[in-house]
Amino acid sequence: MSSISSYRERPERERKIHINLFLRNTGHHEAAWRHPQAQPERTLEVGFYRELAQTAERGLFDSLFISDNYSGTWRRVEPFTLLSALAMATRHIGLIATVNTTYNEPFHIARQFASLDHISGGRAGWNIVTGAGGNDAYNFGKANHPDHALRYETAEEFVEVVKQLWDSWEDDALLLDKQSGRQFDAGKVHEIHFKGKFHAVRGPLNIPRPPQGYPVLVQAGSSDSGKELAAKTAEVIFTAQPSIEEAQSFYADVKSRLARYGRTPDQLQVLPGLSPIIAGTEAEAKELEDELFALTDVSGAIQRLSDRLGVDFTGYSLDSRVPVDGARGIETINGMKGRHQLLLDLIQRERPTFRELIVHLAGARGHLTFTGTPLQLADVIERWFIERVADGFNLMPPVFPGGLDIFVDKVVPELQNRGLFRTAYEAETLRGHLGLARPEHVRGTNWTAAGAEPSF
Amino acid sequence: MSSISSYRERPERERKIHINLFLRNTGHHEAAWRHPQAQPERTLEVGFYRELAQTAERGLFDSLFISDNYSGTWRRVEPFTLLSALAMATRHIGLIATVNTTYNEPFHIARQFASLDHISGGRAGWNIVTGAGGNDAYNFGKANHPDHALRYETAEEFVEVVKQLWDSWEDDALLLDKQSGRQFDAGKVHEIHFKGKFHAVRGPLNIPRPPQGYPVLVQAGSSDSGKELAAKTAEVIFTAQPSIEEAQSFYADVKSRLARYGRTPDQLQVLPGLSPIIAGTEAEAKELEDELFALTDVSGAIQRLSDRLGVDFTGYSLDSRVPVDGARGIETINGMKGRHQLLLDLIQRERPTFRELIVHLAGARGHLTFTGTPLQLADVIERWFIERVADGFNLMPPVFPGGLDIFVDKVVPELQNRGLFRTAYEAETLRGHLGLARPEHVRGTNWTAAGAEPSF
Repeated sequence: MSSISSYRERPERERKIHINLFLRNTGHHEAAWRHPQAQPERTLEVGFYRELAQTAERGLFDSLFISDNYSGTWRRVEPFTLLSALAMATRHIGLIATVNTTYNEPFHIARQFASLDHISGGRAGWNIVTGAGGNDAYNFGKANHPDHALRYETAEEFVEVVKQLWDSWEDDALLLDKQSGRQFDAGKVHEIHFKGKFHAVRGPLNIPRPPQGYPVLVQAGSSDSGKELAAKTAEVIFTAQPSIEEAQSFYADVKSRLARYGRTPDQLQVLPGLSPIIAGTEAEAKELEDELFALTDVSGAIQRLSDRLGVDFTGYSLDSRVPVDGARGIETINGMKGRHQLLLDLIQRERPTFRELIVHLAGARGHLTFTGTPLQLADVIERWFIERVADGFNLMPPVFPGGLDIFVDKVVPELQNRGLFRTAYEAETLRGHLGLARPEHVRGTNWTAAGAEPSF
Repeated sequence: MSSISSYRERPERERKIHINLFLRNTGHHEAAWRHPQAQPERTLEVGFYRELAQTAERGLFDSLFISDNYSGTWRRVEPFTLLSALAMATRHIGLIATVNTTYNEPFHIARQFASLDHISGGRAGWNIVTGAGGNDAYNFGKANHPDHALRYETAEEFVEVVKQLWDSWEDDALLLDKQSGRQFDAGKVHEIHFKGKFHAVRGPLNIPRPPQGYPVLVQAGSSDSGKELAAKTAEVIFTAQPSIEEAQSFYADVKSRLARYGRTPDQLQVLPGLSPIIAGTEAEAKELEDELFALTDVSGAIQRLSDRLGVDFTGYSLDSRVPVDGARGIETINGMKGRHQLLLDLIQRERPTFRELIVHLAGARGHLTFTGTPLQLADVIERWFIERVADGFNLMPPVFPGGLDIFVDKVVPELQNRGLFRTAYEAETLRGHLGLARPEHVRGTNWTAAGAEPSF
């Protein structure tokens, strides 16, 4: 706890809110795409994302982020291709790609992140996920999605290999000496000879160390092993916290785990998701909320909830309470972890009807929702920030582009007036925006020199 | 041969030269990076490639292309990230990524190409390779690089899976009907249930069919199985042809193979590599050639040649002839295929000294080289094109940016004056530039509907 208290003693004026934009097709409300303002026909068009990225950069956001998975019929532009494109349309904002450690090769991922970091001048971040969807396995010739424990074990090893590959070129390995004809110092480029339980990789990587040393490491797991992996590895944590009480306990929990790994609390920024419905007046905001609710497909929702939780709820009416015991009650669900656990906690605590639960999930899938004016939202943000419930937010506008525009135009200036948010970018890299140090190069013990100059 | 002759009868005025720019760090000459004009410190900087891409687009090139591998210390920006970035800095030029079918997952590759094609508005191409470097295996936990036959068998299956994934969404699957709430027609999104010898993939892909149907398929193998795969699958072939005689026989060979697969000769464009040293006068061009030769590291070259061919040539002097028989002669080399075979043919035909061979390879690794004026180069290009030796060229400037600038500023206008090259882009997609049809959607026999609408 000593590190927590030293953190709390840091002068308040040094702390600034961090804001990440969570991109998601037409928006984060389930019914966003049906809203008159939504542009679903543009969600495969890079110009759509360019406009959102440029708005977020005008709002001085730390970063933008896109989630991912490898199955289903949700239309997704692939993160590396999208973020590399957006790197060319922006100058400061960080670019965080979600990449799964269960169905990828460390060499390819180390390389694509290094490349994105070079292309963007040090703005890459990696949201490390292990895959929630069981169907991903079938697209990679696997019979089953590995269980949670195995996935986290794989993830830990995966991140270790990737870091070694980023370090396989020392920062000063490149010489580019035209006179002597030496392109690099062969003693500073290394074969890593990694042999783990899941991966064996010789190295070196075929691209020099990223400008940031390592791209910023982000984690979104809320299970116990997710929090532990975050405490060991992550520099930003995205989390779904529907209320201030839960968020505060989560915040204290993850911050307290850092000391075990020799880390200080300010080396991990906690950013809960926030999906605000904002309008000039409370009445207008409520009207927009109602409008989105009216567009929500409630009829098939009990079936979708059953699919999501793996429990058969068919036969229940929308207005009956979600059962917490008995043959079909959620207490009988085994193996639920992470974001499902948060949902179970909410069901047990609030005993919602199916309709209430469905409306809650439709808003932002269990993240904090808000309906009100820019000033009211600034109050919420200020409270969560000042009371050490959050270091900032993962902004999930219900409908693009309007939900982002009003945040940038009305909420950001208010946060700036209160001295809580930057008034200009003060750094060149994502690490710089987040106040994170550039990782020192680490040399592995089994490493050997990678050998001769490149040949023709 | 009937299809060849009908092709030859097409009016000459309809044919136009196709030009692809082969990007490669500081240039294609081995010593390029040491040239005073070269900017080796910029080869990890996207602005460097943006300038080259914009010059190529000013020159109305069909496409640009980047090669790739997965081992060694040659510094390489990863193709998908680089080309996605360049998509944002250009409007017309095609973007061809090299992707290996030996060390990748079809789902990821289908998706990254679909995404690049969407981002670029239909400008993606895929240079399909199986990997030449044995060391690639060690970066993916494999003990050995699979042999040539196995790699080609894998490649054929890989391309088949990827095409099915691109087809897993029919062109008109998206509905986006806000009124009815239907995002897509579930009967037009398919699980492909692919089960092959090397890959099993259920599908569907999580991104709709690419704008081009399939990105343009490019092949660069010159072995017999490479040519056969090209005849079956490819729409562009990159090839290393050091002389007009060899190139003409190669051209006739691959064009004649197309009929077996029900294809016509104009469905495959043959683009030999061309590395021209160009200057205002012959004397100046020769001076630049000498300058580059003087910068070439000849001393270690016999060792590098030994490494490349897998034959120990140490002990030979630079001015002795490369042996073609005996214990260390090249006739004893087994298992050489593709580009190595071309090199062996050249050694047997021309009986070069080690020095001559090394200089030849340093210029452009066995591709056609040229030293002279823009008019002389236009003569060569015209002859190769008119005599059906080539459908255009894969341009490999010896040093960037100068070697590209002079081609665009002096050679392109001359080709335009002769009516051989476009004077404006006439199409929006890479397929359009190359005169290739958009592939029809093909429905597989084992396919099933992918199921319900996307859930929250």
